[in-house]
Amino acid sequence: MKQFIIILTALIMASTGLYSQDLQDIKLNAPDKSRGSAVMKALSDRQSVREYDAKDLSLQDLSDLLWATNGINREDGRRTAPSAMNRQEIDVYVVNKDGAYLYDPASHSLKGLTKGDFRKAVAASQDFAATAPVSIVLVANLEKLGNPASENTRLTGAMDAGIVNQNINIFCAAVGLVTVPRGTMNKDELKQALKLSDTQALMLNNPVGYPKK
Amino acid sequence: MKQFIIILTALIMASTGLYSQDLQDIKLNAPDKSRGSAVMKALSDRQSVREYDAKDLSLQDLSDLLWATNGINREDGRRTAPSAMNRQEIDVYVVNKDGAYLYDPASHSLKGLTKGDFRKAVAASQDFAATAPVSIVLVANLEKLGNPASENTRLTGAMDAGIVNQNINIFCAAVGLVTVPRGTMNKDELKQALKLSDTQALMLNNPVGYPKK
Repeated sequence: MKQFIIILTALIMASTGLYSQDLQDIKLNAPDKSRGSAVMKALSDRQSVREYDAKDLSLQDLSDLLWATNGINREDGRRTAPSAMNRQEIDVYVVNKDGAYLYDPASHSLKGLTKGDFRKAVAASQDFAATAPVSIVLVANLEKLGNPASENTRLTGAMDAGIVNQNINIFCAAVGLVTVPRGTMNKDELKQALKLSDTQALMLNNPVGYPKK
Repeated sequence: MKQFIIILTALIMASTGLYSQDLQDIKLNAPDKSRGSAVMKALSDRQSVREYDAKDLSLQDLSDLLWATNGINREDGRRTAPSAMNRQEIDVYVVNKDGAYLYDPASHSLKGLTKGDFRKAVAASQDFAATAPVSIVLVANLEKLGNPASENTRLTGAMDAGIVNQNINIFCAAVGLVTVPRGTMNKDELKQALKLSDTQALMLNNPVGYPKK
């Protein structure tokens, strides 16, 4: 009986997260909406970089990066990136040494999904990508667009992912971060870490860091 | 013999464009690489707008817009927009009241393709789009990427088109132009006007103009 109570207590604590290995959510800083170089200067400086300093991103840099990527820029909930029929089907995930997170634009925070370092799953065969402190992974929730089995739906999701992706590239160029957009990744492993359904399609990922010294 | 010489002369003049109804090429101005608001301000202002002043774009605005979209920003020929394996497969076309043009990044100029106003072909069922003075049309040259018959090739072209497209949106937000990315268009008519092959895929278009007063 005593053993049963201990097990029961452990199960209850685990189910409520008190006793679990759950990844903590992260509250982000308010974005600095006047930051960065002029747009034409950022476009001049835009380049793909595959070497990163190991240093973690500051909370402000991460906060600004995520808002730039696909944050809410109007009171009606519309975003920095347009989407087909305003379906807002591109979700932004963050993978760092601690775990995998989902960016929630409404609360401008990161929801912890899975503990563990999944940067090698992002990198797959290209080791350099795992050396960045953080990777931004873009996923198209195809059910928001239409029939996920239709190539047209997938193409629309791919275009919208590209649109979101260029926000990352331009933001990084504007503030001195470095990055590269990638299609390579271990999709099976990431699907588990990001808790994706079969109709959420992994599209692109972007290692982001400070320039290597 | 005299008739033969007249015909020969006409043929030579036509082939050199001296005697033809060809659309003239347009030499663009050097891009202003310090122009535009700060990137985070441009992202704050980014929105899709479907009403345009009828006024033509100034040559400087058109020049800066095209360079921002997919211009050469480094001596090795790389671009403001990244592309898969640096294949640079996204071509940028311009449609205005005079005709259809291809943007040539190397010479930073517009090559005249077909005379005529094809803005209604861009608009298709959405009349508002034909009221913009210019539309930017993005085409993926799938043969540069791989097998054009593979969905994977088309998805990669779609992502790269989206990446290029967001340069348009952010540039416009940064300099007070207005635009909206669109997937709707009359592809059969545009394929002819832009002189596309079967492996050049029409991806997205963007009416661009000054805000309606």
